[in-house]
Amino acid sequence: TDSHRIALLPGDGIGPEVMAVAEAVLKTLIHGHRLPLDYEVLPWPATDWHRRHGEMMPEDALQRLRGYDALLLGALGDPGPLNDPDRYRLSDGVSLAPLLTLRKGLNLWACERPARFYPGTVQYLADPRARDLDMLVIRENSEGEYAGQGGRLRAGTRDEIATQLEVFTYAATERLIRHAFERARARRDERDREQRPRTFTLPDGATREAQVCLITKRNAQAFWGDLYDRVFEEVAADYPDIATHHELVDAAAMKFVQAPWRFDVVVASNLHGDILTDLAAVLAGGLGVAPSANLNPSDPDQPALFEPTHGSAPDIAGQGVADPRATLFSLALLLHWLGEKNAIFYGAARHLHETLTADLAGQHPASGTDAIGVRIQGALGGNL
Amino acid sequence: TDSHRIALLPGDGIGPEVMAVAEAVLKTLIHGHRLPLDYEVLPWPATDWHRRHGEMMPEDALQRLRGYDALLLGALGDPGPLNDPDRYRLSDGVSLAPLLTLRKGLNLWACERPARFYPGTVQYLADPRARDLDMLVIRENSEGEYAGQGGRLRAGTRDEIATQLEVFTYAATERLIRHAFERARARRDERDREQRPRTFTLPDGATREAQVCLITKRNAQAFWGDLYDRVFEEVAADYPDIATHHELVDAAAMKFVQAPWRFDVVVASNLHGDILTDLAAVLAGGLGVAPSANLNPSDPDQPALFEPTHGSAPDIAGQGVADPRATLFSLALLLHWLGEKNAIFYGAARHLHETLTADLAGQHPASGTDAIGVRIQGALGGNL
Ligand SMILES: CC(C)[C@H](C(=O)O)[C@@H](O)C(=O)O
Ligand SMILES: CC(C)[C@H](C(=O)O)[C@@H](O)C(=O)O
Repeated sequence: TDSHRIALLPGDGIGPEVMAVAEAVLKTLIHGHRLPLDYEVLPWPATDWHRRHGEMMPEDALQRLRGYDALLLGALGDPGPLNDPDRYRLSDGVSLAPLLTLRKGLNLWACERPARFYPGTVQYLADPRARDLDMLVIRENSEGEYAGQGGRLRAGTRDEIATQLEVFTYAATERLIRHAFERARARRDERDREQRPRTFTLPDGATREAQVCLITKRNAQAFWGDLYDRVFEEVAADYPDIATHHELVDAAAMKFVQAPWRFDVVVASNLHGDILTDLAAVLAGGLGVAPSANLNPSDPDQPALFEPTHGSAPDIAGQGVADPRATLFSLALLLHWLGEKNAIFYGAARHLHETLTADLAGQHPASGTDAIGVRIQGALGGNL
Repeated sequence: TDSHRIALLPGDGIGPEVMAVAEAVLKTLIHGHRLPLDYEVLPWPATDWHRRHGEMMPEDALQRLRGYDALLLGALGDPGPLNDPDRYRLSDGVSLAPLLTLRKGLNLWACERPARFYPGTVQYLADPRARDLDMLVIRENSEGEYAGQGGRLRAGTRDEIATQLEVFTYAATERLIRHAFERARARRDERDREQRPRTFTLPDGATREAQVCLITKRNAQAFWGDLYDRVFEEVAADYPDIATHHELVDAAAMKFVQAPWRFDVVVASNLHGDILTDLAAVLAGGLGVAPSANLNPSDPDQPALFEPTHGSAPDIAGQGVADPRATLFSLALLLHWLGEKNAIFYGAARHLHETLTADLAGQHPASGTDAIGVRIQGALGGNL
């Protein structure tokens, strides 16, 4: 088999710390487990690169990234101690911009953020059924509220008007919603294989083994709400085996807290998905273990981008306390995704995932960046 | 003192049920407690009115409502059993439209949704500190994501493009944020009187006794994010006694779950506020007790609109199980607001609020619409 090429993008803040653990694990998988994989560590995008070159990444960054099969990003965002007037300071708008540039530039139109409760993580919800939380939020990643159109008229005056145009197209909506139904089927099949079926009851009493829940704010934002509704209905007709459900984004936030175990696949716009994925991640035990995948399911040749859902956490950077597991779970997603082209990666993805899960569920789950790294490496048969 | 005029707008679904309890309580306050108040019950806005007249409310509705001092709304939204093909069915876009029409038409630009944990309500969060939750989310109510501008191009085709324009003005932003700081001061003074001070620590270690947290998504929606940031900084300079804080909306959703007791006043745009108020309400014990106020603080002659945060709940309408407390807490807010013009209402507001709170905290808080009504009425000295 040909080697696959991965780029590691450590980024800012805790990014390099958690990426060091991911790199060590990757080495073990390559050398110890004979994974047909090459990797390179790139010094950009990063605030440090900006200090030296006046930009977060080189002009030909997208072109160069297209040469890889998959990308693993640590975190972005102005690092360094807060409130230090001497440090090199970038606005969020500059330091985080590459996230949106990469997602849009590589046309990674679907962002998948699985949220599953793992014993050993923080249980924020009092109801013990919250341990059954196992949902996949699929977020639109290419347009909508983050289309970036708009501006400021009379900026800086007392007459300023700021506008932001939300743009939703049929094409992007259709592929997103269809992908959600496909993933719902795939998850059901996986649950079947693992003999842990779930049941969703339809209003007429019939049942299905998977569900897709559509999120909108149709009652206050009807223009795109109507488009989403129409496309959802159209696409759902092709998947009679999947239960469908609608929630308004405000009610969804509430129901995530009240009964998160009722959700399966959730499909949402860019902004709604942004909020609901953070919420789902924390309800599932915190951002320390929440991975994410940015994919182009319609063009598997585009390199996919995997990243922890957390940010660069400048307040804890450099202290060795950042949890590397969200990055390791993201690496597992990456291997799983490569597994769609090359069966050997499947095993590695599953092995890594099981190792992480078992460690979390252990009597004394490790804490501290390196301690977690040593533990996972030990289980995989490598060294940190 | 002159009598004040209130309009009761029962609306749809569980609205009339919970309003019946509020009306009984209001009668007790008027007759038993000599509150200088008149009220009328209006049959609109309502789906039932729509069936008879082809519209949710009369054309001169806004004009007639301006003749009252305050409005209490039950709930809106197409009622009746779900899945009943024979019933009169309205889309959310039609049946809920009066909510936005009233808020915008009466220029009620600030929506206040206090969230406080009351013993006796559901405790969704495992951390016992969540019992200290006591925040006020102030939501922009007049523009932003709900400006209603946009449209559908090539609607219904595979080339459809839907747009929704978010519009933010300096004027609306400034008055909103200034109001938030004023409310933070008023809440601090109230806490001082009640001898339950709170402390918020600034980055330099200094402390303040109140806080305002600004919500934006500045890193992905910079146009209005910048406007909000600038205005927040400008206004905050006038309130050196109040601590300030920023959160991105996604991080805020997360932190509401992780440490809701850290928030005091939270100020957010129309959509962000919509989501965060539902989230805060559920974390504080559920929508059954969450009140809200729609106000025009710059023109106290505009009638304010008070409503429970919950909707019309068609699935439980007609069963006598709806919790009337969110409406009663809204009535308490209404009386408190009238108290700004007429001192006698203060006492009534406080009395009603304390009665509701004491009943919730009791050994066996009542459940069922009428049972709760009977209990509260008993405590106030009236009958249902
Ligand atoms: C019904 C809907 C338009 C409304 C809103 O979003 O304002 C509701 O969710 C609310 O929060 O009062
Ligand atoms: C940093 C920001 C632009 C980004 C987003 O909103 O997409 C982040 O919140 C995320 O969810 O990955």
